[in-house]
Amino acid sequence: MVEGHVGYKNVRVGSSPTLGTNSLMNRVRVVLDTLGGDNPPAELIRGGLAAAEAFGVEVVFAGEQGLIEREIRGHRLPLSVIHAPEAVKMEDPPAEAVRRKKNSSLVQGILALKEGRAEAFVSPGNTGAVMAASLLHLGRIPGIERPGIAVSVPTTGAANFLLIDSGANVDCSPHNLKQFAIMGRIYMQEILGLPQPRIGLLNIGAEEGKGNALVRKAFDLLKEVEGFVGNVESNRLLQGGVDVVVCDGFSGNILLKGVEGSAAAVIGLLKKSIHESLRARVGALLLAPQFQWLKEKLDASYHGGAPLLGLKNVVIIAHGHSDALAIKNAIKVANSAVQSRLPEKIEQGIARFNGTPLFQASGEG
Amino acid sequence: MVEGHVGYKNVRVGSSPTLGTNSLMNRVRVVLDTLGGDNPPAELIRGGLAAAEAFGVEVVFAGEQGLIEREIRGHRLPLSVIHAPEAVKMEDPPAEAVRRKKNSSLVQGILALKEGRAEAFVSPGNTGAVMAASLLHLGRIPGIERPGIAVSVPTTGAANFLLIDSGANVDCSPHNLKQFAIMGRIYMQEILGLPQPRIGLLNIGAEEGKGNALVRKAFDLLKEVEGFVGNVESNRLLQGGVDVVVCDGFSGNILLKGVEGSAAAVIGLLKKSIHESLRARVGALLLAPQFQWLKEKLDASYHGGAPLLGLKNVVIIAHGHSDALAIKNAIKVANSAVQSRLPEKIEQGIARFNGTPLFQASGEG
Repeated sequence: MVEGHVGYKNVRVGSSPTLGTNSLMNRVRVVLDTLGGDNPPAELIRGGLAAAEAFGVEVVFAGEQGLIEREIRGHRLPLSVIHAPEAVKMEDPPAEAVRRKKNSSLVQGILALKEGRAEAFVSPGNTGAVMAASLLHLGRIPGIERPGIAVSVPTTGAANFLLIDSGANVDCSPHNLKQFAIMGRIYMQEILGLPQPRIGLLNIGAEEGKGNALVRKAFDLLKEVEGFVGNVESNRLLQGGVDVVVCDGFSGNILLKGVEGSAAAVIGLLKKSIHESLRARVGALLLAPQFQWLKEKLDASYHGGAPLLGLKNVVIIAHGHSDALAIKNAIKVANSAVQSRLPEKIEQGIARFNGTPLFQASGEG
Repeated sequence: MVEGHVGYKNVRVGSSPTLGTNSLMNRVRVVLDTLGGDNPPAELIRGGLAAAEAFGVEVVFAGEQGLIEREIRGHRLPLSVIHAPEAVKMEDPPAEAVRRKKNSSLVQGILALKEGRAEAFVSPGNTGAVMAASLLHLGRIPGIERPGIAVSVPTTGAANFLLIDSGANVDCSPHNLKQFAIMGRIYMQEILGLPQPRIGLLNIGAEEGKGNALVRKAFDLLKEVEGFVGNVESNRLLQGGVDVVVCDGFSGNILLKGVEGSAAAVIGLLKKSIHESLRARVGALLLAPQFQWLKEKLDASYHGGAPLLGLKNVVIIAHGHSDALAIKNAIKVANSAVQSRLPEKIEQGIARFNGTPLFQASGEG
């Protein structure tokens, strides 16, 4: 069963042997960009296969058709292929890549959402290019100037917090930050069911008046958002205490990668020290379950994908280093976002905010 | 022996019983701001006493004279007191605090440097206010627009790297970043004896062209600085590979506190897990030396102070949470900086750079 399209082929390769027609109709279709990120397509495709098996989604592989078909042959799962063999590289300038590489897995994957052939797009590739293609072809929710990446970051407590923006917007206005706060609030309420999320502004001091020109102006605007609790410093974030952390994408990305790198460094140092003595080796062996649990809590592979909030469709950014497990998890996030109608919820929340319920007079917040 | 000054008293309380006149004459005098930071004066004073005992410096305690004298009574060490009982609080707006709180330990301590009554100033207090007072009373090295805080950050390798600016300048120009790079280079060469320090620009991607408007412009300017190796991402920093990391003070502070917080979180999680089982408890007991070593490597207390590079005098910023040990170490850093004539070295290096030896044509770097 091969469907022809201008510039690509959408090939339906199999269908679930277990689900009936109705389930099949409602099945969420998730496009996976197999040519993005640091890992080869085969690794990413393995993640897609695992997701199709685990979550009952249809995975639409965008990339080099011949290669994809070799990898998915024999799997009796709901899978299809978009032949889009051009790769947007991590170092490609985003706007130019989107303009020139029309037959890339990234652009064709986004177009599949636009044309209603899929409900979600997952990419471990060039974040700037995903953002550019999304803005060009999918459009934003009214009232949102810039979509933001919302990453769920683990803490030492039970709950994660949402870091928005984690890297989509390197230069932000104070209004961008206010919109991130509102979207983060809606996400926590509507998707995670937290009735009163606490929102913090990432800053270098706890007191009002601290920080650069951007955050000082954003502080005043954030007072209008219910749940705003003031500035939060990056050394206190992992202890919990706030549910949404608002920042520009440059600072957010520096923080996110800094946390990732230092947690890995601490674990690496402890592991290295094991070679120092028999005593340390035995100790590490006894603590192995704890190390493993910590690794899972921290490892990007176990987190997977982060939604680009503010778009009319579900677009999920996966880590550039994503392996099969991370891709599987990113597709799970995509499926949940579609099932819970995330873009509509954000749109309704923004509309309400532009009305009044979320609005407060300055100074009350 | 009490010397009277306008607005404060400089009280000499003791002198070293062991050193001769010549040593006494050359002894470095370090002013300690006892009213800054999160800890009470007594804790900071204990750090000063320990430093005077360990490093042969004269510690000049700036703060509430009666309280200081009670704490230092009976110690036969080279100590003196500046009575300056006003405290600049962490939340005070810097410029206003410096203007209004003329009799603060912070302002009077800086003035002691200006007037040649001491060679270095150490404060765990309001960084912005230390910066403002330094700019007002001490002045900058010619060619430097903004001094930057240079923090030594541990890596998983043998060597630390220098993070500049770690928080003195929340809004920077590309030229500020170039000057940080040059000062960092000189510091590593002249103070740490590293002949060819590698300089990286903190960014959210490795490739040229990544990042916000500031770092994209700074990248071009940094090409003119010898040793510039390009962008560095925050998840790779702790593995080593660069000796100097250049950034604006907002991003640098977010990164520094993020690393601090996540290392503490990982250790905290491992400690907490110990209560889960006897096996884990025994494992942790066996690994205790490693935990301790790691704690020492990471703990701010063991690092102490960071120089504010670009000033004509030695000014050391200590962590706001500094305990006695951190203060002791900060005074050690201050003593080394004076002994190695840090400000002169920076000044000479900048003068050479404005000549040509450090200069390269754009594109060669």
